[in-house]
Amino acid sequence: MSAGIVTSASSAPTRRDLAGSPFLDAAWGRRPSRLPVWFMRQAGRSLPEYRALRADNGMLEACLTPDLTCEITLQPVRRHGVDAAILFSDIVVPLYLAGIGVDIVPGTGPVVERPVRTAADVDALPDLDPEQAGPVADAIGLLLPELGRTPLIGFAGAPFTLASYLIEGGPSRNHEVTKALMRSQPEVWHALMAKLARLTGTFLQRQIAAGVDAVQLFDSWAGALSERDYREFVLPHSTAVLGALAGSGLPRIHFGVGTAELYGAMTEAGADVIGVDWRTPLDVASARSGGVVPVQGNLDPAVLFAGQEAIDADVVRIAAEGTRCPGHVFNLGHGVLPQTDADVITRTVETIHAQPVA
Amino acid sequence: MSAGIVTSASSAPTRRDLAGSPFLDAAWGRRPSRLPVWFMRQAGRSLPEYRALRADNGMLEACLTPDLTCEITLQPVRRHGVDAAILFSDIVVPLYLAGIGVDIVPGTGPVVERPVRTAADVDALPDLDPEQAGPVADAIGLLLPELGRTPLIGFAGAPFTLASYLIEGGPSRNHEVTKALMRSQPEVWHALMAKLARLTGTFLQRQIAAGVDAVQLFDSWAGALSERDYREFVLPHSTAVLGALAGSGLPRIHFGVGTAELYGAMTEAGADVIGVDWRTPLDVASARSGGVVPVQGNLDPAVLFAGQEAIDADVVRIAAEGTRCPGHVFNLGHGVLPQTDADVITRTVETIHAQPVA
Repeated sequence: MSAGIVTSASSAPTRRDLAGSPFLDAAWGRRPSRLPVWFMRQAGRSLPEYRALRADNGMLEACLTPDLTCEITLQPVRRHGVDAAILFSDIVVPLYLAGIGVDIVPGTGPVVERPVRTAADVDALPDLDPEQAGPVADAIGLLLPELGRTPLIGFAGAPFTLASYLIEGGPSRNHEVTKALMRSQPEVWHALMAKLARLTGTFLQRQIAAGVDAVQLFDSWAGALSERDYREFVLPHSTAVLGALAGSGLPRIHFGVGTAELYGAMTEAGADVIGVDWRTPLDVASARSGGVVPVQGNLDPAVLFAGQEAIDADVVRIAAEGTRCPGHVFNLGHGVLPQTDADVITRTVETIHAQPVA
Repeated sequence: MSAGIVTSASSAPTRRDLAGSPFLDAAWGRRPSRLPVWFMRQAGRSLPEYRALRADNGMLEACLTPDLTCEITLQPVRRHGVDAAILFSDIVVPLYLAGIGVDIVPGTGPVVERPVRTAADVDALPDLDPEQAGPVADAIGLLLPELGRTPLIGFAGAPFTLASYLIEGGPSRNHEVTKALMRSQPEVWHALMAKLARLTGTFLQRQIAAGVDAVQLFDSWAGALSERDYREFVLPHSTAVLGALAGSGLPRIHFGVGTAELYGAMTEAGADVIGVDWRTPLDVASARSGGVVPVQGNLDPAVLFAGQEAIDADVVRIAAEGTRCPGHVFNLGHGVLPQTDADVITRTVETIHAQPVA
């Protein structure tokens, strides 16, 4: 396939014309030619070709070596025929690019060298210079011609999820240091979040300038908060990130997990598409978010282990629930689990593509 | 304090008369003399005296040696002046007592020797003989006179949470083997759940016969399920457990975490009190559960790290939300975190006791 490269007034000089893309049509609430699907973490350990490639390369190396990033991002598109690629990256990549001491430790996840817990710690955090995101932009440059007419979704972690990693020093089950800091030192908290919103904004703007066709803001841990806390401590900063991208002309997907109480607030932050996990039916989440934007989701990743009959039954149900929303991009409710059988994913894409659209 | 021991028609020949207990009054929707509070995992690593005692004793030993269980259960009552004790135990204790190969490994949690995944595995699972729960009944026997007029809450894990441990072989982040089994082999699933409902029922009946004053059914992992799955695969079995206790005359508390979508269904299962985590305001959860039973909760355990001012503000808000429910037992939204400062807990109890009741 070849893509038409067009000059546009938007920030990307070489924005591709992807008219008729099922993913973009659904994301904008237009009737797609088929029910579009992609999977969070579709590029990853479920694919033998990914595991082979990662055997010799660390996670940060895979995210920051353009030809590796390009190849890993393409693998699930080639194999499964999904309707969008998602830039292979990690939540902490922009922190690393900005010069913050962070590593991704196999079996543990991101580990931050010096946790951030005081005003001085926040002041000492560097900003991200767009030039520092060069390897990511270069990967996008390699990807666009390879992808043909398949859209590429840009990737960034949201300020709250980044803040939790920085404050806790790594993944946290209960986020107690983070929640204590937000309440006991609100000025430090908001200064940190404002800084992370700028960093995330810079990272996404660089991806947009390089040519991505949509963006997804991952607030993986937002579901740890009540709506009250989310509105006071998080919403203003995620709004700053998403609001600054409103003029890009690209759909902005806003995703969290365990966010049953947050669909309204996360939509208010400036989402064009709201991600929904499997706990809430799509049409219920859509109603809670005001019924104004398309939804993305929401097959339970664990169902991919339950056999094709069970998978197909859930796909049919979810597709039907999606027809009662202002638009529907099929996805899982969270990322593909590492042990998932790649062939099952491919067959599931076929089932999804066979569903009627509204 | 001394407790009046009375003969009653209920299953416990020596049921104490605890008339005027703030906890029991609130649990039955009567106006308590003060806002009652206890904390899930109040007996545990937050207490120096617990850590000292556990230094020489494994977890299962602590749960199954009556004088140890008694002492650990009493520690937070003595220290904090809470309005109820909760029997110190672990989710897997009745499995162990029934002879199922399970151990509690420090840093990991319960580990099951032979995971249960087939009809034959389910058939091979032993039932629990009430006599096997002797050490737990003996601990209750020691506790009742020591507790004076403080009620004792019995403890058991719900069938779904037990099933997840048995099927996965230990704690699981995504419960994929469990969810796959429930969908791909529903007859095996329901046979397992029916067996676990019997075992849980036997375990709780033995505690009731020994004299506990209330019971709490912990379905810690239920929040991993959608309401649809909960109703199909879990509700009938939790209903069997709770329904069999309806005649006991004791309040039945039903608790899960991340259960924003499940308050209605978990109340329908037969709860006299519904546990609420911090993500949902008490009055909202109460409305979702039909507004018919008292609520228990819901301070975020992480807030105990945020300083007394932040804690007090949340206590005041939560107590006010509780006045708009048919009854309110103050608690955390989940268990006390191990690093929590014990003195902070004690001061928080004082703040809670100073709140007005409806």
